[in-house]
Amino acid sequence: MADEGHGTDGGRLGGVRAGIVATGSELLTGRITDRNGPWVAERLGDLGVEVSHLVLVGDRGEDMAAALRFLAGDGIDLVVTTGGLGPTADDLTAEVVAAETDRPLELDEHMEKVVGDIIAKFADRLRWDADALAAANRKQAMVPRGATPIRPAGTAPGLAVPPHPERGGPTVLVLPGPPREVRAMWDEALASGPVRDVLARTAPWAETHLRLFGVPESEIAATLRDVGDTTDLTPLEITTCLRDFTLEVDLRHAPGSTAAATARDAVVAEIDRRHGRTIFSRTGQTIDELLFELLDGQVVATAESCTGGLLAGRLTAPAGASAHVAGGVVSYSNDAKADLLGVPRELIDAHGAVSPQVAEAMADGALARFGATIAVAITGVAGPGGGTEAKPVGYVCFCVRTADGRTLARDPVLPGERGDIRERSVVLAMHLMRRALSGEGEPAPV
Amino acid sequence: MADEGHGTDGGRLGGVRAGIVATGSELLTGRITDRNGPWVAERLGDLGVEVSHLVLVGDRGEDMAAALRFLAGDGIDLVVTTGGLGPTADDLTAEVVAAETDRPLELDEHMEKVVGDIIAKFADRLRWDADALAAANRKQAMVPRGATPIRPAGTAPGLAVPPHPERGGPTVLVLPGPPREVRAMWDEALASGPVRDVLARTAPWAETHLRLFGVPESEIAATLRDVGDTTDLTPLEITTCLRDFTLEVDLRHAPGSTAAATARDAVVAEIDRRHGRTIFSRTGQTIDELLFELLDGQVVATAESCTGGLLAGRLTAPAGASAHVAGGVVSYSNDAKADLLGVPRELIDAHGAVSPQVAEAMADGALARFGATIAVAITGVAGPGGGTEAKPVGYVCFCVRTADGRTLARDPVLPGERGDIRERSVVLAMHLMRRALSGEGEPAPV
Repeated sequence: MADEGHGTDGGRLGGVRAGIVATGSELLTGRITDRNGPWVAERLGDLGVEVSHLVLVGDRGEDMAAALRFLAGDGIDLVVTTGGLGPTADDLTAEVVAAETDRPLELDEHMEKVVGDIIAKFADRLRWDADALAAANRKQAMVPRGATPIRPAGTAPGLAVPPHPERGGPTVLVLPGPPREVRAMWDEALASGPVRDVLARTAPWAETHLRLFGVPESEIAATLRDVGDTTDLTPLEITTCLRDFTLEVDLRHAPGSTAAATARDAVVAEIDRRHGRTIFSRTGQTIDELLFELLDGQVVATAESCTGGLLAGRLTAPAGASAHVAGGVVSYSNDAKADLLGVPRELIDAHGAVSPQVAEAMADGALARFGATIAVAITGVAGPGGGTEAKPVGYVCFCVRTADGRTLARDPVLPGERGDIRERSVVLAMHLMRRALSGEGEPAPV
Repeated sequence: MADEGHGTDGGRLGGVRAGIVATGSELLTGRITDRNGPWVAERLGDLGVEVSHLVLVGDRGEDMAAALRFLAGDGIDLVVTTGGLGPTADDLTAEVVAAETDRPLELDEHMEKVVGDIIAKFADRLRWDADALAAANRKQAMVPRGATPIRPAGTAPGLAVPPHPERGGPTVLVLPGPPREVRAMWDEALASGPVRDVLARTAPWAETHLRLFGVPESEIAATLRDVGDTTDLTPLEITTCLRDFTLEVDLRHAPGSTAAATARDAVVAEIDRRHGRTIFSRTGQTIDELLFELLDGQVVATAESCTGGLLAGRLTAPAGASAHVAGGVVSYSNDAKADLLGVPRELIDAHGAVSPQVAEAMADGALARFGATIAVAITGVAGPGGGTEAKPVGYVCFCVRTADGRTLARDPVLPGERGDIRERSVVLAMHLMRRALSGEGEPAPV
């Protein structure tokens, strides 16, 4: 594993293999990140399908055809394409897939009416003339012979295309480009005959999701290596991933395998034994979701310096946050700390704006000013300037305080650059809130 | 163009074609997004190289080899691979590339020493024993015959591998997986003999970058179609992209082409004529960069309700923001609006917390409490609940006010879901600040 922050170990699972082709020249300029491929890959993975290739190609027929032939030649059972289904001339996917599976395009009159009705609603806005409209309509209703059209979520129907009638090869599921439409059409796509036939040959994996905070990935890697010395881990797929400063450990295996279940239990037991204190979720729940539940009935206030409002922004991201978030102060200047949070100026002079003492006073100020039941204060050196030997870049002071007098305070030196330090501080603050609210006491070192 | 929010029109440029292969099984689970492919694609694009495929494959030798053969068979001149260069058994890229270009792997003694010195520093931390260390060291110093090693930024050297000595085919640039290392090694990779030989056959494109705010993409599409009716746009590559609620229009063409320059001038002139008021940058500068410059010498305060601190978080993202950001209040509750910003409770009762009147009072409060020269207030209905017929979800009131009495206020209904509405509000607020500071007066409708 050369990649930083994530890796996959263990054996491969058998069954259905899939490839994904995302089309769109804009995906190859580097300015747009493909959002469909990873989403489709995750959905397929959940169904027990192994995704072996994800190919991004431009809006050129020959490039798209080459990608399809590559996957067909590579023993793939199912190809999912996204994009290239629009009304314009460079939207070529249906045509290319029809040619590759040797299925002539035929007008589907029902789909023509469905698309026509949808387009009619947009016609004024798009300022198309009637002829262009009818042509676009017809183009989007062309279906390869024997394929099943999938009702559009936008204006473009999808297609579930069975393998080539003589040569065989993959079933091709053709979906439009807009991520919203892909998501909206997914369930109907899975239910279509050709896709159902392929998926009948697989079964969803059994999955275990552990979420840990405050343990380096290298330690989990060492733990996994040690378990592997005494237990056969090959029937298990183990993915470790450092995301949002949280270590995600996902174990997947084919359902019904006792060898896999034994391996999984051995891994979980050893992670529990060595790193149990750092596990905060065994269901895959995020810290945001967990904290949202814990905050029910509380009144939350924030006092942020180096994170500049990012913690408040994150706590208010979920719908319904107004039920428990009162608000916060971004006290970027010393004056703001004194005037808006009542931090004594002598305290700032004596200890500096970045100090455990000032963090505590900020939390007290937030509790009082917002009438809160729990307050969180963050003050730190996010850099790149402003660091000293005693308080280097990354030095951040946290204080979580509740109205009934509990306090959790920390002042670690966080690694990374300015953006990392700010984001990492937000996550650490959320974990401190979680511990304060769940009565877990002092957090593990981070 | 089936894809929402972006598209590419116009002709293709000749010259060098490249493909990218990103390896790593974790990239195919959907949980990790490949960050190397788009970055490399953008760099290559800037050099005038056309990227035709980006392939993501797992850590399996046969899948990787299949991807390389696919690109070689497709007339690609340059393949860039990322990942799979680590010390463990599933790091296979060097081996696969050596086999595909028929170049036996040979120990590079200089690289062995370079890698050895680097690994030695980490040895304790990684807890490797001496034998494992030496083996890892040797594995990472194996270079295909005739290839140029590239100094590691982490522990893994890169490789610039010339085409197959008889069959020809692509030059292969092999880089490690960690995005930081790819970026750090890029310049030296470009300077290596084999890569330099390929790039000699191309030249950087001439580029024009327009950034517009407050114009729908469909109108730019119509403008481009109309220009295309009278001017030949084929020598131009036009990319439009809706990102961060800003419309990016990028024009690229081969250097020295007068036909392309004429086409470019026609496009820019027509966009200017129809949408000139919405253009805020002609250099590709972002609103964040532009605003950072405009805020020099100001004292900024924010008062946020529905955006919950995201505006303050964004204004404090750049290094050096403390020179002009004083702070802000997240007044999520009515009490907070009254207590921390001095919004009269009667005003809230009379007009509602989401109203132009309350936005104005919030801005006044922020100006006064932070001693600011410019304050921005945002209060709105982010949803999904809380909307009424008069104030539906997406109704957001903005007020930008300066200490010397200028005011810019808006209260649009913004489209999208909760997250979109919050992010879009932040961007709109930044544009209102820009207009207030650059004396442009009332913004165009958004």
